[in-house]
This record gives sequence, structure tokens and C-alpha cells, in this order.
Amino acid sequence: MMLYILDLIGCAVFAISGALAAGRARLDFFGVMVIATITAIGGGTVRDVLMNRHPVFWIHDPRYLYLTCITGLFTVLWAHYLPIPAQSLLIADALGLALFAICGAQLAEAAGYKAIIVVLMGTITGTAGGVIRDVLSAHVPLLLRKDIYASAAIAGICVYLLLKTLRVPQNWAFVSGCVVVAAMRLLAVIYGWQLPVFNFSG
Amino acid sequence: MMLYILDLIGCAVFAISGALAAGRARLDFFGVMVIATITAIGGGTVRDVLMNRHPVFWIHDPRYLYLTCITGLFTVLWAHYLPIPAQSLLIADALGLALFAICGAQLAEAAGYKAIIVVLMGTITGTAGGVIRDVLSAHVPLLLRKDIYASAAIAGICVYLLLKTLRVPQNWAFVSGCVVVAAMRLLAVIYGWQLPVFNFSG
Amino acid sequence: MMLYILDLIGCAVFAISGALAAGRARLDFFGVMVIATITAIGGGTVRDVLMNRHPVFWIHDPRYLYLTCITGLFTVLWAHYLPIPAQSLLIADALGLALFAICGAQLAEAAGYKAIIVVLMGTITGTAGGVIRDVLSAHVPLLLRKDIYASAAIAGICVYLLLKTLRVPQNWAFVSGCVVVAAMRLLAVIYGWQLPVFNFSG
Repeated sequence: MMLYILDLIGCAVFAISGALAAGRARLDFFGVMVIATITAIGGGTVRDVLMNRHPVFWIHDPRYLYLTCITGLFTVLWAHYLPIPAQSLLIADALGLALFAICGAQLAEAAGYKAIIVVLMGTITGTAGGVIRDVLSAHVPLLLRKDIYASAAIAGICVYLLLKTLRVPQNWAFVSGCVVVAAMRLLAVIYGWQLPVFNFSG
Repeated sequence: MMLYILDLIGCAVFAISGALAAGRARLDFFGVMVIATITAIGGGTVRDVLMNRHPVFWIHDPRYLYLTCITGLFTVLWAHYLPIPAQSLLIADALGLALFAICGAQLAEAAGYKAIIVVLMGTITGTAGGVIRDVLSAHVPLLLRKDIYASAAIAGICVYLLLKTLRVPQNWAFVSGCVVVAAMRLLAVIYGWQLPVFNFSG
Repeated sequence: MMLYILDLIGCAVFAISGALAAGRARLDFFGVMVIATITAIGGGTVRDVLMNRHPVFWIHDPRYLYLTCITGLFTVLWAHYLPIPAQSLLIADALGLALFAICGAQLAEAAGYKAIIVVLMGTITGTAGGVIRDVLSAHVPLLLRKDIYASAAIAGICVYLLLKTLRVPQNWAFVSGCVVVAAMRLLAVIYGWQLPVFNFSG
């Protein structure tokens, strides 16, 4: 139950970030709803299709769709009248990444996959929505730029798996993984951490 | 049977629009075939994968592929010798959108999905092919610009579902939904209707 | 067994080409790994999802993922200290295309699909990874430019199917198909063969 609420919060947060990205690209009202929804449910959808989990989570439970549409609408209204608190949005986005990545990893783990697949599925769940958002806006995905984003997800999932191997209780492992993802992501933004670039001109 | 023929017509129409887009991007002959085929079958393919309908419709019935390839080829030849009648193409595209959207909605409805999923599946069936076409050509998808396109699909599907709830016979509901989609799309183009843009620069 | 090794070689080759493309786009270390992996496994993943083959090949056998990550890492290190031998990479890429296309066709054939689906599935297996790579880097996919790439795959698969119809033994048909793909691709690059462009400005 707690997990379900956290998942909905993650969806709402990503829907906000998608709606704002759509506003930057000057899309119309419908485009805002679409980008907000895709950003929020894209990662989980790719994960479900690859893992052959049917029905896909938002077909099984359409509340996710209501939530992303309402959140997109709310974001447009809010941005029209009030300033967007950039800091709190950043924190929310880091939390969304953390929740989605560890939830996705947990699903893959429950399906009995090997560790590398668990890491990959968690990372896909956390990042694919944003990648699709960027591709639809014809940008090079943020994920692939010199910014610690997916790396934070990978690090947190590894901590989660490590703690599970050490027989730490499920809840503690879950929270610890989330904290690592969110903390790495936030510290990277605050201190401008970057990964080294591979520059090849052949 | 009637539905099958309408579906094939929709495919052919979208294949033409895809081939012309490929010609604008100066692709080679093979690129024309690929873009024509993807534009025509992309929406239904995404729908089938999300709904776990296997085999995917064009694997089940390869006539769709023959049709899109031949249509792409025919379009190249036609454009080489004769002018493209822009008006008739516009009408054809609106009809294709209408047929695909309502057919997709019907399939989702037959699978027992809730109304919001039916709307979404119909919209995906009608628009995803064009989105993939635009992404492959590195454009911001038309769908997401200030143009009434997916909105027309959504409106028509809602009318279709409403009529079904009112126990209007299937055929009448189908035709009414199609007419709403096509009429909205055509009127939007003719009168330059646009949705308001969300402009956010944060 | 031989086929499995050839498949792994194809993966490694495509991972190298993906890593070099990432280096040209000045991505960070993680971006290199992601692009290398997507380029290598993207085609087979799209094929498996469309054919409803679950688990997807790299979920079934995660060695593919270890291989692409290690190959991406190795490519970065190599490019840092030594020149990249352009000719050998070109040959390797043509071999990768050949192996993936004919392997993919073989899988579709074994599933009992009609000839046009077999051709399409083989072409998807050989080219979709590169298409996704190009889309993520916001380029018009190489596949769709005036370059004989997918055309080589299609030609080779047709030769493979023709030889099978003529009751040539499986191994000979396989090798012949691969040779046709690789030879056409290499000759096209060496002699600058191009397909005619469809130029439409309507």
C-alpha cells in the first residue's frame, strides 16, 4: 500500500517535469498532457513490455493515467499564476528517479532475474520515460549527457541488491537504495559533478 | 469484411503520407518504403504490443506489408510524373486518422478495457505511426505541435463511446465517431484552428 | 554453438561502432556504455518483442550485456591510446550486419512466418539497433540516407530464402546469405554506390 502511494507520487513528480519540458518547447495543451503522461509512465511501460508483464501497469490500473493528466493540467495552471519553485522540483525529480529505479529493480528481482538484469530493469524504469520525452522533443537525451543521472540509479540499485544479499530486511534495503539514488543525484546537481567525456573524432 | 477494407484503405493513405514525407527529407528509394510502411503500421503495432495481441496484425496478415510497399512505390512514380493533389491527400489523411482511431478504440473496447484506456489505445493507433515517422526524420512530432490532430481522434472516440453507452447500434456509433474525427481534423486545417500554447521558460 | 559465437561476435562489433558514435557525440562514460549496448542488442530486442519471444534474448542470457559493456569500456581505452583502424571496423560492421540479418531471418523462418515477414524480421534484427542509436543522438538515421545498408540485408536474406527453397543445406544457405550482405555493404562503401533519392517538395 505504502509502495503504491510512493509509486503514484513518483508518477506525479515525473508528470510535472514532463509538463514543464513541454512548456519550454511551446507545445499546445494536448502536447503537455501527452508529454507529461509519457514521461511518467514511459519507463514502466518499456519495463513491462520487455519483462512480458501483461497487462501493462497503467492498463491494469488506469488511475495512473488520470493522475498524470490531472497533474499536467494542474502544472499548466500553476505556471500561469505562480512561479515554479525550481529547488523543490529538483528534489522531487530526484525522489521520483529513486522510487522508480528501486521499485523497478524490486519487480525484476521478484521475477527471479540475475543481478545485471535487475540493475538494467531498474535503470530503465527510472530513466526511459525521460529519454522518450527528450526524443519526442528532438533533443539529445539528458540521460546521455555528462550529468550523473542513470549512474545514480545504478549505484542505488547496487546498494539495494548488496543489502539484500547481506540479509538486511526488505524495507531497510529499499529505503537505503532510494536514499543513495536521490542523494547522488542531488549532490551531483548541487556541486556540478560530472562524469568524464569520451571525445572521439574519427 | 467492410472493416477490413476500410483498414486497408487507412493503411494505404498513411503510406502515401509517409512516402511524401520521405521525399521531403530526400531519402532514397528504400527509405521511402521504410517510412511509408512505418507510418502505416506503426500505430497498430504499438497498440498490439501494449495490448499483448500476438501475432501483431501485419505478422498475422502480411497483406498490409505488400500494400504499404506497393503504395510507397506508386507514390514515388506518381510524384515523378504528376502533381500531388494536396487537397485530396489532406482529406485522405483525415479519413485514415478517423478509421485507425475508431478501429483501435473498437479493439480495446472488445478486450474489455475501461473507457480511458479505450480512448488512449484508439489515439495511439491513429497517431503513433506519424510520431515514429517524425522522430525518424528528426522533427518535433506534428502531433505535439499546435495543430488539432490527436485532439480530433480523442473527440471522435469519446463520441463513439458515448453513442455505444446510449445503445446506438455498433455501425452507427462507428460511422459517427469517424465523421467527428475527420470533420474536426479537416475544419481545423481549413480554418486554421489551433489549441492554445503553454509557454514556459524556467 | 558456432551460431552462438558468431552472434556474440556480431554483438561486440556493433558495441564498438556504438561506442565510437557516442565518442563523436562527446557523451560521458555511462552514455558510451548505454549507446554501445543499445546498438548491439536493440535490433534483436525489437524482433523478440514483435515476435513475442520471451524472455528477450539478453534477459535469457545476460552474457550479451556483460559483453557489450566490456566492449564499450575496451573501445574507450583503445581509442585513448591507439588509433582506430577504420578499415577493419568497416569490415567488422558489415560482418555484424550480415550475421544479425541472417540469424534474425532464421529465427523468423523457424517460427513459420511467411517470406515477407522473414525478410522484415531479419532486416529489423540487423538495423534497428543502429536506428535507435541514431535517434538517441538526434540524427536522421543512417539507414534512411542514400547508403546501401538495409538494402544489403534484404538482398542477402532473399538469397538465403531462395537457396533454402532450392533445398540447399542450411549451413550453405546461411553462409551464402551472410556473404551477400557483407559483400554488398562493403562494395557499396568502397565504390560509393548509392540508391537514387526521391526528392519531393510539396
